[in-house]
Amino acid sequence: MTGDFAFCLRARDGAARRGQFATAHGTVETPAFMPVGTAATVKAMRPEDVAATGAQIILANTYHLMLRPGPERIAALGGLHRFMNWPGPILTDSGGYQVMSLAKLRAIDEQGVTFRSHLDGARFTLTPERSVEIQRLLGADIAMAFDECTPFPAEEEEARRSMELSMRWAARSKAAYRARPGQALFGIVQGSVYPGLRRRSAAALVEIGFDGYAVGGLAVGEGQERMFAVLDETVPALPADRPHYLMGVGKPADLVGAVRRGIDLFDCVLPTRSGRTAQAFTRRGTVNLRNARHADDPRPLDAECACATCRQYSRAYLHHLVRAQEILAPMLLTAHNLRYYADLMAEMRGAIEQGRFEDLAAGIAARQEEGDIPPV
Amino acid sequence: MTGDFAFCLRARDGAARRGQFATAHGTVETPAFMPVGTAATVKAMRPEDVAATGAQIILANTYHLMLRPGPERIAALGGLHRFMNWPGPILTDSGGYQVMSLAKLRAIDEQGVTFRSHLDGARFTLTPERSVEIQRLLGADIAMAFDECTPFPAEEEEARRSMELSMRWAARSKAAYRARPGQALFGIVQGSVYPGLRRRSAAALVEIGFDGYAVGGLAVGEGQERMFAVLDETVPALPADRPHYLMGVGKPADLVGAVRRGIDLFDCVLPTRSGRTAQAFTRRGTVNLRNARHADDPRPLDAECACATCRQYSRAYLHHLVRAQEILAPMLLTAHNLRYYADLMAEMRGAIEQGRFEDLAAGIAARQEEGDIPPV
Repeated sequence: MTGDFAFCLRARDGAARRGQFATAHGTVETPAFMPVGTAATVKAMRPEDVAATGAQIILANTYHLMLRPGPERIAALGGLHRFMNWPGPILTDSGGYQVMSLAKLRAIDEQGVTFRSHLDGARFTLTPERSVEIQRLLGADIAMAFDECTPFPAEEEEARRSMELSMRWAARSKAAYRARPGQALFGIVQGSVYPGLRRRSAAALVEIGFDGYAVGGLAVGEGQERMFAVLDETVPALPADRPHYLMGVGKPADLVGAVRRGIDLFDCVLPTRSGRTAQAFTRRGTVNLRNARHADDPRPLDAECACATCRQYSRAYLHHLVRAQEILAPMLLTAHNLRYYADLMAEMRGAIEQGRFEDLAAGIAARQEEGDIPPV
Repeated sequence: MTGDFAFCLRARDGAARRGQFATAHGTVETPAFMPVGTAATVKAMRPEDVAATGAQIILANTYHLMLRPGPERIAALGGLHRFMNWPGPILTDSGGYQVMSLAKLRAIDEQGVTFRSHLDGARFTLTPERSVEIQRLLGADIAMAFDECTPFPAEEEEARRSMELSMRWAARSKAAYRARPGQALFGIVQGSVYPGLRRRSAAALVEIGFDGYAVGGLAVGEGQERMFAVLDETVPALPADRPHYLMGVGKPADLVGAVRRGIDLFDCVLPTRSGRTAQAFTRRGTVNLRNARHADDPRPLDAECACATCRQYSRAYLHHLVRAQEILAPMLLTAHNLRYYADLMAEMRGAIEQGRFEDLAAGIAARQEEGDIPPV
C-alpha cells in the first residue's frame, strides 16, 4: 500500500459510518476501538483474553518499544505479532505523542526530535524516516506518519507552525514508507482547535495521499465540546472512502459522539488504565470497586455484561481483590472494561446498519445518567 | 467426617505412595501439590488458569481471610468456593503458622493466641474452636487442626512444651469440629527436630483420630537433610491408610525426597512467589528471567514443557516483560511454575504406579544438575 488499502463502507446513518477494512492479520469491522498494548502487552491481559473481549485490533507504542526492547531486536525475533503472541492486526503510533509527553530534554528541529529516554536517560533521535523504519521493523499492519502533537492550549500562530511542521514530516513519512506490501500508512491531521488550520492540514494530507486519516492533538485537555467542534470541522474534510481515526479517545460518551461525527477508529488507555485503578465501566456509568458499598454485594458488576468477570464474580469479591491489592483485580477489571468497550462498538455498528444510531446514542446516555445500582 | 474420609492407596513403590481421596468438590490424585491461594486468589492466576496447570486442589489461608474480608462475610456470600470461583477442592490451614510469622504483638496462652492484624493493627483472638469455626464458615473441604508452629531452632524442652500445647489444641479442634458432612479434618504433628517428640505427637494425634495427618513445623530453616531425617522418623508413625501432608514444602528436590518417604500432599508459595520475582522452574533447574542472557533468546523457557507460556512465548519476551515490570510477567511465569509442579507430581504418580520411582528421582536430579541451556 498505499493505494490498495481496502476500506469498504457498508452503511451510513447520518454521518455515522459502518465499515470494514482488511489487513494481512485479519479484518476490522468499524467503528472499532483498539486496546492499547504499550510495551508489547495489553497490560494485565493475555492476548487470547484480549481477543475474547471482542477486540479486533490493538495499538502498540513506537516510543516505548524503541526504548525497550528495541525494534531491531523485535524484528530479529520475528516481528511484534510473534514477539507478543498477538495474531491479529496491530496499529503502531509514530512515537510523536509519547516523545512530547514522556521523554526528557527534548529538542525539536526541522529534522526531528532528539530526546532522552524516561527510563534511563539514553539519547535517541526520532525523525519521520526513523519512525517509519521502526514501524516497519515492528511489522505493524497500520503505521502512522510522524507528527508533532501540538501542545494545548496553543495560540493560532504556534498551532500553525506546529501543524505545518507535521505536514512536512507527513510528506517525509510517506516518502520513507515507499508502499510496503501488507502495511498501510495513515496521516494525522493537526491544527489544534482552529478550524482553518484543521482544514488546511486535512487538505495537505490528502494531497500527499494516505490509506487512512487520523485526527490528532485532541483529548489533551480541550474538553468534549471543543473536541466535537473540531470533529465537526475536520471530518467532512477527510476522504469519505478512507477510515477516520480519532487518536487517544476516550470515554464512552466521547466514542458515541465521535462515531456520530464520522469517526471509524479509536484507541485509548482508559479501559485498561482504569482496570488497574479499580474503575469499571458499566451500562449505568462508572463504578469504583474500592468503595466500601461493594463489600457485601453478591451482584455482578454489570448484570447485562456477558464477560467472564461479570458472569463469575461478585462485586464483593472484586472489592476484596482491590483492597488486598491482588493482581487478579486488574486482570478481571481490565477484561471487563475492554469487553464493555468492545460491546459498545458492536452495538454502534449494529445500530448504524439498522438506521437507529440516534436511538441507541440516546439510550446509552440515559442509562449512563441513571447511575449505578443502589447498594444492597 | 472424620471417619468416613475415603483415602485409597492404589500403589506403592518403596515408601512412596500412589493414592486418591475424594472430597465434595472432586477427587485428588496423590501425591499432589496444592498451589497457595492466600487471600482467596492464587496470585496472578484466574481459577480456570490454575486448573489448566493440572492443579487439583488449592490451599487458602485462614489467617488472611479472617482479617480480610472476614469468614462471616465469605459465608454470607456462599462460601469460599463460590466467592473465589474455584469449583475444586480447597484445604484451609488453621491460621497458626501465619499468626506466628505475620501478626504483631502476639500473646499465647492455653486458650489460644491474641494478636494484632499486620494490616491495620485490629485485635483478634484465634483459638482451636474459632479456627475450626472459621474453616467451617469458609467451607473448606479439608480443615486443619489449630496448632502452634514451634519456632526453629528450639531447645528440646521448648519444643516439648509447644508440641504438647498443640496436641491439647488438636483435641479441642477435633471436639469443636464435630464431624461435619463434606469436610475432613487433619491433625498436625509437631516436635521440631526431636524424633521422640515427633513420635509422641503422632501417637497423640492418632489417639484423637483424624482424617489425615500433616507434618508441620518444617521448612522453617532446618535444611533439607534435617527435614528428611524428621520425615524418616515421623512418617512411619502415621497411619498408612490416611493421607500424609507435608506443610509448606517446597523445592522440587524436597518434593521428590518427601514422596520417597511416604508424603502424599504438599503446599508451598514457591512456584507462585517465584513467578512474581522472575524465577522459573524448569527441567534443567531454576532460571532467572531478569538475566540479560535471555534478551535475544527466541527459545522457550523449557522446551519440554507443554504449558501455554512455553508454547507461545520466547525467553526474550518474558525477559522484556520482567524488565518492563509488566503484570503479564507474573501471570505467565506463575502459570508455567504451577504447570512445572503439577507435571512433576504427575510424573511421580506415574512412576510409583510403574515401580520406577527411584529411576525417575535419579533422572530428575541429574537433569536439574545439568543446569540451564547455554545462551544463544
